[in-house]
Amino acid sequence: MSVNLSAPDPSQLFAIAGVRMGVAQAGIRKVGRDDLTVMLLDSGVSVAGVLTQNRCCAAPVLVCREHLSVRGGTGQGGIRALLINTGCANACTGDDGYARAQETCQALAGRLGMGIAPQQVLPFSTGVIMEALPVDKVVAGLDTALADARPDHWLKAARAIMTTDTVPKAFGAQVLIDGAVVSITGISKGAGMIHPNMATMLGFLATDACVSPGVMQQLVTELAEGSFNRVTVDGDTSTNDSFVLMASHRAAHAPVTSLDSAAGQSLRAALLGVAQKLAQAIVRDGEGASKFITLKVEGGKTSAECLQVGFAIAHSPLVKTAFFASDPNLGRILAAVGYAGVTDMDQTLIDLYLDDVQVAGQGARYPAYRESDGQRVMQQSEITVRVVLGRGLASETVWTCDLSHDYVSINADYRS
Amino acid sequence: MSVNLSAPDPSQLFAIAGVRMGVAQAGIRKVGRDDLTVMLLDSGVSVAGVLTQNRCCAAPVLVCREHLSVRGGTGQGGIRALLINTGCANACTGDDGYARAQETCQALAGRLGMGIAPQQVLPFSTGVIMEALPVDKVVAGLDTALADARPDHWLKAARAIMTTDTVPKAFGAQVLIDGAVVSITGISKGAGMIHPNMATMLGFLATDACVSPGVMQQLVTELAEGSFNRVTVDGDTSTNDSFVLMASHRAAHAPVTSLDSAAGQSLRAALLGVAQKLAQAIVRDGEGASKFITLKVEGGKTSAECLQVGFAIAHSPLVKTAFFASDPNLGRILAAVGYAGVTDMDQTLIDLYLDDVQVAGQGARYPAYRESDGQRVMQQSEITVRVVLGRGLASETVWTCDLSHDYVSINADYRS
Repeated sequence: MSVNLSAPDPSQLFAIAGVRMGVAQAGIRKVGRDDLTVMLLDSGVSVAGVLTQNRCCAAPVLVCREHLSVRGGTGQGGIRALLINTGCANACTGDDGYARAQETCQALAGRLGMGIAPQQVLPFSTGVIMEALPVDKVVAGLDTALADARPDHWLKAARAIMTTDTVPKAFGAQVLIDGAVVSITGISKGAGMIHPNMATMLGFLATDACVSPGVMQQLVTELAEGSFNRVTVDGDTSTNDSFVLMASHRAAHAPVTSLDSAAGQSLRAALLGVAQKLAQAIVRDGEGASKFITLKVEGGKTSAECLQVGFAIAHSPLVKTAFFASDPNLGRILAAVGYAGVTDMDQTLIDLYLDDVQVAGQGARYPAYRESDGQRVMQQSEITVRVVLGRGLASETVWTCDLSHDYVSINADYRS
Repeated sequence: MSVNLSAPDPSQLFAIAGVRMGVAQAGIRKVGRDDLTVMLLDSGVSVAGVLTQNRCCAAPVLVCREHLSVRGGTGQGGIRALLINTGCANACTGDDGYARAQETCQALAGRLGMGIAPQQVLPFSTGVIMEALPVDKVVAGLDTALADARPDHWLKAARAIMTTDTVPKAFGAQVLIDGAVVSITGISKGAGMIHPNMATMLGFLATDACVSPGVMQQLVTELAEGSFNRVTVDGDTSTNDSFVLMASHRAAHAPVTSLDSAAGQSLRAALLGVAQKLAQAIVRDGEGASKFITLKVEGGKTSAECLQVGFAIAHSPLVKTAFFASDPNLGRILAAVGYAGVTDMDQTLIDLYLDDVQVAGQGARYPAYRESDGQRVMQQSEITVRVVLGRGLASETVWTCDLSHDYVSINADYRS
């Protein structure tokens, strides 16, 4: 049993005018594989990002936060390059790690010339925690990566940012905004919210849409909230998680200045669709995953409590092993709902469905439920669990995977 | 590799005057094993309990809560019997489950005679969720269990309340209070905070100490807080978790009316010692556990934030699989510290130790740390992790186990 891994469809990976990618083999941890990626942005491209909330965040996250606060979202004079390495996370490395991340930005800015400052470069690292970034290897790889930069290198970049991912993750879409064709393409990596030592979820989403710099941060925050913040493999938040949105303003429509406008809503929906595919691809490729689970929590008083319940189910090792075993052991789901922390919840109002099969009604086994029906759904590789709380009108969706022997093997054996 | 399972030492299981246990084979789920236990309390024994906070709590928990609110802690006219069954949790069973739990209390109260009311019986169930309690089988087993009741049946009772536990859990201690010998004996069950279908942690602790009914609830709450609420196997809170303290007032000392008195402090410390052994035994017998991990979080601003950090580490599947693999993959621990939710934490103040080995200092790899030292500690079956936050004077300890292939097997294969 394995999930649909959604391999990239090259015809859907659109070149985004103003954005080029190049890769190189820098030999950071292993030789003979692409492990260094540059994304080059023309002048005027707007950039905004959402970075890990982990308080032990990595050095490149600290640097990104600074550079985005100075140069992010501003268009002219703004971010001109992203520099991504695998093999070393540069996390838990203290002041030395911070200095090394800055050195790589300086080296890339110097090679770009044209007066571009180090603050116009964003660094991203993923790999082993608590080891020093080999700056010399990164710098030695820059010329090759720069020479390789082309607008149609999305798939190549998606491969170069992989760590223990089993497939590259790249998706695109096109949408009409005020009659103009707008293209969207993104890549992501990750196979756990934090991967063994190979930590981290990274996501990069580019569009040629015209987006007012003033709404970039709101837009990227809402996109992250609706995609990467709705998926979980093991509940571990990486030291390096980063999601970046780039808008190059090349499409032939008036700038989107409000996300509440018709154009703003269309653009956000199209971007969210791609961001969700990028995020879901991480769960499908989750460590040891054999099932892709969609958890819909409905009838909550607030979105926040729906998410609380969704993540309680998604993080329960007991629920996840039951999915792995195709065992309709559904009391485990109700137990997780019960301990999610919604303290005034009334269990006698809760309904539970597995796809189309009602399992529980009013908190107890649904009279017409037969275990053979639950068994049938549990044997699928894609399953939707629907919990109806009976408290209000809010609803939320969370995506996760099962917990298998392979998860333990991958995480226990990684460094041996 | 396996942990020390702390098998009971019969010489330390003291008879508690006023408390008798009897067991029976009621055939609730499997035939040929003791699955029904009665604990009979003489008139005047004080009883208080701490019950699961799971909002989908089981019917017997609802009944216990009611009966304890009416009859708990009061001594005369109070709780006279506990009735414990394995094989069926009577959870997520709605009004019907509630009625069945009450029926068993009525049946036992009727057999006890002497005007004892059903409200003077506390029911406890552990086993499969979402299945109806077979009241007829429970009732049919009562006479045998009552005829078996003796003060020295602690070990027999400890065996009868097991589900998939691999060893019975029973501990005792004696302490001098105002020159009088006070005895303490307790039993527990559980091999996950919630076991597969065989849900639940149960703990029963009895003493012949004289404890004023007015401090019983405070005492049991503090004991639970310092023992059962400090252990975790998989982070799942059962629908049926219960911990009950019984004090029979037979020891020859003046009643303890305050936990702040010298006598109160001595008694609490002795009770806590036994409660911690009962709780730790559950972790040692945790599903698939091969390592027993003590997590000490020090230097916090508050106890609450120390616990947040401790449980974040204890619940991290990545940390738990690293322990299983004896892999000193210690960035995973710092990453868990970072996402624990202490939002104003400064990573450059964090120190990390594995037993006596300093691994990280000021948030980065400790200069003198050698991986061979970490490896040596990780290969032990008992490991202490010490995290120093550098923020204040609070500290807390949490106990957990590793995450192994056997955890997945036990939970995936249970019902097949």
